[in-house]
Amino acid sequence: MFQAVTKTLSVASTTSACRGILLGIRHYCKKTPTKLRVSQALSGADLGANVKVQGWVRSVRPQKANVFLHVNDGSSLQPLQVVAGAELNDPLLTFGSAVEVSGILKKSPHKKQPVELEAEQITVIGECTPVDFPFKIKERHGLEYIRQFPHLRCRTNAFSSLLRIRSEATTAVHSYFRENDFVQIHTPIITSNDCEGAGELFQVKPSGPEIVEDEYFFSVPAFLTVPGQLHLEVISGAFSRVYTFGPTFRAENSQSRRHLAEFYMVEAEISFTESIEDLTKVMENMFKSATEHVLAHCVEDVDLFHKHVTPGHRDTVDAMMKSSFPVITYTEAVDILNRSSEKFTFPTDWGCDLKTEHEKYLVKHCGNAPVFVTDYPYDLKPFYARDNQDHPERTAAAVDLLVPGVGELCGGSLREERLDLLSARLEEAGLEDTYSWYLDLRRFGSVPHGGFGLGFERYLQCILGVDNIKDVIPFPRFSHSCLL
Amino acid sequence: MFQAVTKTLSVASTTSACRGILLGIRHYCKKTPTKLRVSQALSGADLGANVKVQGWVRSVRPQKANVFLHVNDGSSLQPLQVVAGAELNDPLLTFGSAVEVSGILKKSPHKKQPVELEAEQITVIGECTPVDFPFKIKERHGLEYIRQFPHLRCRTNAFSSLLRIRSEATTAVHSYFRENDFVQIHTPIITSNDCEGAGELFQVKPSGPEIVEDEYFFSVPAFLTVPGQLHLEVISGAFSRVYTFGPTFRAENSQSRRHLAEFYMVEAEISFTESIEDLTKVMENMFKSATEHVLAHCVEDVDLFHKHVTPGHRDTVDAMMKSSFPVITYTEAVDILNRSSEKFTFPTDWGCDLKTEHEKYLVKHCGNAPVFVTDYPYDLKPFYARDNQDHPERTAAAVDLLVPGVGELCGGSLREERLDLLSARLEEAGLEDTYSWYLDLRRFGSVPHGGFGLGFERYLQCILGVDNIKDVIPFPRFSHSCLL
Repeated sequence: MFQAVTKTLSVASTTSACRGILLGIRHYCKKTPTKLRVSQALSGADLGANVKVQGWVRSVRPQKANVFLHVNDGSSLQPLQVVAGAELNDPLLTFGSAVEVSGILKKSPHKKQPVELEAEQITVIGECTPVDFPFKIKERHGLEYIRQFPHLRCRTNAFSSLLRIRSEATTAVHSYFRENDFVQIHTPIITSNDCEGAGELFQVKPSGPEIVEDEYFFSVPAFLTVPGQLHLEVISGAFSRVYTFGPTFRAENSQSRRHLAEFYMVEAEISFTESIEDLTKVMENMFKSATEHVLAHCVEDVDLFHKHVTPGHRDTVDAMMKSSFPVITYTEAVDILNRSSEKFTFPTDWGCDLKTEHEKYLVKHCGNAPVFVTDYPYDLKPFYARDNQDHPERTAAAVDLLVPGVGELCGGSLREERLDLLSARLEEAGLEDTYSWYLDLRRFGSVPHGGFGLGFERYLQCILGVDNIKDVIPFPRFSHSCLL
Repeated sequence: MFQAVTKTLSVASTTSACRGILLGIRHYCKKTPTKLRVSQALSGADLGANVKVQGWVRSVRPQKANVFLHVNDGSSLQPLQVVAGAELNDPLLTFGSAVEVSGILKKSPHKKQPVELEAEQITVIGECTPVDFPFKIKERHGLEYIRQFPHLRCRTNAFSSLLRIRSEATTAVHSYFRENDFVQIHTPIITSNDCEGAGELFQVKPSGPEIVEDEYFFSVPAFLTVPGQLHLEVISGAFSRVYTFGPTFRAENSQSRRHLAEFYMVEAEISFTESIEDLTKVMENMFKSATEHVLAHCVEDVDLFHKHVTPGHRDTVDAMMKSSFPVITYTEAVDILNRSSEKFTFPTDWGCDLKTEHEKYLVKHCGNAPVFVTDYPYDLKPFYARDNQDHPERTAAAVDLLVPGVGELCGGSLREERLDLLSARLEEAGLEDTYSWYLDLRRFGSVPHGGFGLGFERYLQCILGVDNIKDVIPFPRFSHSCLL
């Protein structure tokens, strides 16, 4: 192990930036140290052992007799404290540099950390010139500042916490569905249908000179998926519980703090539904199960957000977890809005779409807790939403979940499974040929079914209290911005 | 529960396709039956219970006194056998129709199934006219035939098995990385860099009239990602173990049985590497861990492929699992090819790329087991591959994993972490401005690192023995084809 490193370093030493500097070897012939990740070292299981830890320097405090380093390798928010004799100090031991430290793991005399590494050898693997590095030691940079450096911001505490939380939340979503017998389906990114007819689509073409003789590479115009729903409905014709979790796209010219051109959606489709409650149950359970998992598995990382980024947000989260999400109809929602003394910018007449200001008011009205709004006007909903066939105000069996701070988190509906009704609606829209395959799903063994989508970034905003959606995704894409 | 269903049915009965037919109720006032999924019913835990099962009819066998149905809901390959008195039979009980069956779960007198459902009530929820339905009862349709019906093929045994296996293999991949402390990163789909300069990219533009005043929506040309590697490398500057698992794209005009325009890649990036072995270990362990998981969790589904689709393939899989994947260098591989008596179409001189025919030969030469080929000619590899600085034949620290039937399954390399070498190579290619952010990763705390990508569809082909890549993805996209 030692030899291999030395070899790497001797190769590296022929170059300028990655010069390996051996800062003193006390014990040449000792047993090869065990390689540990920072989280493993912090667990305390290897107290007294001779170990090697590799990572990046997050702080350097030189004192008279000793130098103290904090070393982080992404495995936890908490760094490993390294204590080294002053003779091991070196001007290249700077904030942001990469190091390898060997020594003995000891119980720390300080309360702040359980263990510390008494260094016997420190090697600077990769230098980091403080004056050029955009992040400064001891400074707490805001999310907006670090957003300017998409290739470096993962090296800050806040964004590395976010990435661990995002990874854990992803696991939590998969676990929920797996435990509830859902089969995961990879719905396609490139599609020849536009689902909602929304028009805000990205089109996909080969970048070079056309490499097929056709007008189109795929023989038809091809777009980036808006939702995976229609494809998920295909599969739900044989699987009574399916879900997908992947990127979706909107070509919206928006710089809003709630919209991205590329964002992740969790979508589920359930067959043999009896009412909209079959959907709200899954939405609420998934929300709570995932949140519980994240709160339990990312204690320090979530705390960083709840203490330093959005103080006080933990109370909102706790309240959400305790609440039974109320269900109101769109008609009741409109009544609530019309009875309120609030002045809204957009109209609140029956038939109008609910805007962010309305959603926010409804959430506040319901005790700052998540609320389901069901049975929207039929004319507001896409062709696939199930007709409630009610009078005099015709509604569709659709549902949105509104949450504090974010507004709409989920949207779903029962789907029109009745061939004649669906057929008539598609014909009206001139779409019966485009969607003949979709009608086939109702021709052969059609069943009542429904599903929903949850915006994953909005979910993270909701539980962390992060104001801007660009701060909860590794590489945000929006109009005028596609960095890296 | 009963009432709700009846309500659904009475609504449905106003329409043609989804007419609900109540076929006889023996016991009106009995306890509400427990709703079970087919896999739950088959587990035998509810023997003697009054249950309700919903699904699709996979076979109908009317006899003198009884009618036998097989009902499937996607939760397992094995259907639930329903036994009903002849009086419950109905012409609408056809192959492909959707039904709801209530009755008592009993131990089956037949060896083939552990339990059967003695029906008290059968409701046809969705009809399926046999003459129009493209799949026929008792016929085993080939994969090529069912591929013509992308919206219906999940209703066949083979493709529903594939979907369950794919879902389970996805879980297995995530589990492997999670258990080994990797953080999952959602690398972007839309990107402004083309990574390999391969040229076979899809470009992304808003489909409607331009909605931003700029020439480009993102202010720069934007493409669909080829690999997530460069973005993963960004994160590996703060996290020593990261991975991503998502769709990637190639605008190749290919109809090959190994290529798609949209396919899934598992990519991992590991910091503080010492040699290429740090990568081969992870590739081999992940392959074996995922395969072990799939073989253990999808016994019946995998058997369907190994018995009926590709007889004999199980031996190949077992041999792969037992083998320690050998490692040979590219130079050794070329020697093997040149010493062989095989006539190759493409040249095998040192410096030439290995083609499928060569890969197949090497796999066969190594006992029809997976084999790693390392240290490819420097000039064959992209700018980010680490220069081995060897003489006289200059190689790069790159590695491919070749497997039986498929050829290249994984490709990876150590990355050039030395700023001066990387910088010189990018300058040579005129790319130093485009990749200045990538050079930054080497300016600030650079560490030796490397990674690899695994083609997920090829992995499924490899373990199942499926010849055509279009048969292991729910919605295949390739030149001239983007159905649904």
